[in-house]
Amino acid sequence: MNLNPKQVAAILAEQDNITILTHFHPDGDTLGSALALLRALRKMGKKVNFVNNDPVHRKYAYLWKGLKKQDFEEKFVVAVDIATEELLGDALKEQYAGKIDLSIDHHPSNTMFAKDTCLEGESAAAAEIIYYVIKELGVEFDGDMASCIYTGISTDTGCFKFRNTTARTFYIAGIMKELGADTETINEVMFEIKTRGELELERIMLEGMDYYFDDKLAIAVITQDMYKQTGTSEDECEYIASIPRQVAGVYVGVTIRERTNGTYKASVRTKPPIDASEICRAFGGGGHMNAAGCRFDGTLEEFKNKFITVVGEVL
Amino acid sequence: MNLNPKQVAAILAEQDNITILTHFHPDGDTLGSALALLRALRKMGKKVNFVNNDPVHRKYAYLWKGLKKQDFEEKFVVAVDIATEELLGDALKEQYAGKIDLSIDHHPSNTMFAKDTCLEGESAAAAEIIYYVIKELGVEFDGDMASCIYTGISTDTGCFKFRNTTARTFYIAGIMKELGADTETINEVMFEIKTRGELELERIMLEGMDYYFDDKLAIAVITQDMYKQTGTSEDECEYIASIPRQVAGVYVGVTIRERTNGTYKASVRTKPPIDASEICRAFGGGGHMNAAGCRFDGTLEEFKNKFITVVGEVL
Repeated sequence: MNLNPKQVAAILAEQDNITILTHFHPDGDTLGSALALLRALRKMGKKVNFVNNDPVHRKYAYLWKGLKKQDFEEKFVVAVDIATEELLGDALKEQYAGKIDLSIDHHPSNTMFAKDTCLEGESAAAAEIIYYVIKELGVEFDGDMASCIYTGISTDTGCFKFRNTTARTFYIAGIMKELGADTETINEVMFEIKTRGELELERIMLEGMDYYFDDKLAIAVITQDMYKQTGTSEDECEYIASIPRQVAGVYVGVTIRERTNGTYKASVRTKPPIDASEICRAFGGGGHMNAAGCRFDGTLEEFKNKFITVVGEVL
Repeated sequence: MNLNPKQVAAILAEQDNITILTHFHPDGDTLGSALALLRALRKMGKKVNFVNNDPVHRKYAYLWKGLKKQDFEEKFVVAVDIATEELLGDALKEQYAGKIDLSIDHHPSNTMFAKDTCLEGESAAAAEIIYYVIKELGVEFDGDMASCIYTGISTDTGCFKFRNTTARTFYIAGIMKELGADTETINEVMFEIKTRGELELERIMLEGMDYYFDDKLAIAVITQDMYKQTGTSEDECEYIASIPRQVAGVYVGVTIRERTNGTYKASVRTKPPIDASEICRAFGGGGHMNAAGCRFDGTLEEFKNKFITVVGEVL
């Protein structure tokens, strides 16, 4: 049975000593959702912590401003924005697989791994669902909670630019703004500011971008050397995968990145009607209609050539 | 007396044979506002045209999809999103200065040049005011009108990223989405797609960007040769002026562009507390707190050096 936010609130109201889990390589939505919920539940007097499988980029630090880890014996575990137990990451999966009480998520691919699940696949962000859960909990919103919700919504929609943005997304953003979300700082940190290294990486990447099939396919490559040369890291440059698809006429944008172990992975971004997940399945990967990913153990040349073959068949 | 949207609607309801004027080098807000109002007034059975001083970029063509110029003797003139008669542009100023019946605008600097004015300086876009005017006119919104309003709001806020975005901005965007605005296509055209030439121009510009005062000042230069080399034009590359300020640590981003007559102009973008208009006043220019512009008749070297001097005093 799929729970609604009111039923989720009723369950949470009965619980205490709660751990909230985020997905591996945590992003703005999983973190914003976790911290909004944590802040609401602590306001009700409950003991709550959140845990991440991986280090979190420093730009997200405002989400837990003023909060300290609490000391308690864990009795209830909630997963937010996590579609499968695989996405917990190795350490959290080892510790929590099969033991998650409640999952609040917006991925249609959710495997219903938790004892109870609230899945709203039409929500642009898990943070939209968390907004309704907090309303049902009857907790009064403060500016920090509003900033957490706004972070989840704005980052998962590319600042209201992606196709998942709905009328409801805009309405909730408006309410968060009214409730004191610091949208100006969040927008600057998430969507505006780039380091000189990031800009330099972008420049080098653009210089080497190759086009195929009358420019319908664009392939960009980022090597470990390029990170070193520009003083950047993969974590900081996640947005760069969206650049090849931005080019007029391109239907399939592929960003191939060298991993630290010398193998390669690729992010594939497509425009309708091309299915990115179909392309990635040819490499054993997967994902969404317009954004998917895959890995490859061969050489860079082999990886590129296989993309040219696979995409050529799809186009 | 400053009119409110209800009073504007009452005046417009009484008029017919209406011309709507946009500002020179028309952007998404002046065009979206004009076309939303035109569509609403034509739905009421009135004869209405809109006129531009300058050619309009083809990416805006969907705003007047299905509309034809009407034949009538003009009796009433409305200006939308126009702060001063100077901003009509030379040809329209020659024809209409002193003859504008109604001005609907959101620039606090509006000089009240029209017989009647509705000025709401807190609106992120003129299109927000037009939304309320159409509501007061009692005209039912259709998807095309909603797309026009959404275009004005989204372009003037950088897709809800700029500091002028308010809770009301989000609410109106949500309503437009519900009323059928084609936000997916508009976002793609306005905020996502770049031509290969634009990306190449960006790359060359980044390559030559200079930093001063511990990177607090960044100066980029775009020459006529660079437009030629990349097959781009100034009109298409307006967004490029925002790039220098995006760099982490930069407080003043200057983009100097060579004009076709060999002189130079500059766009200045600042972060608080630096006042861009103060910097541009040193060159006889002006603008807003965070975005201003100026022109210069000397050499590029002189222009750059004067910027370094002026910005050095401000920092």
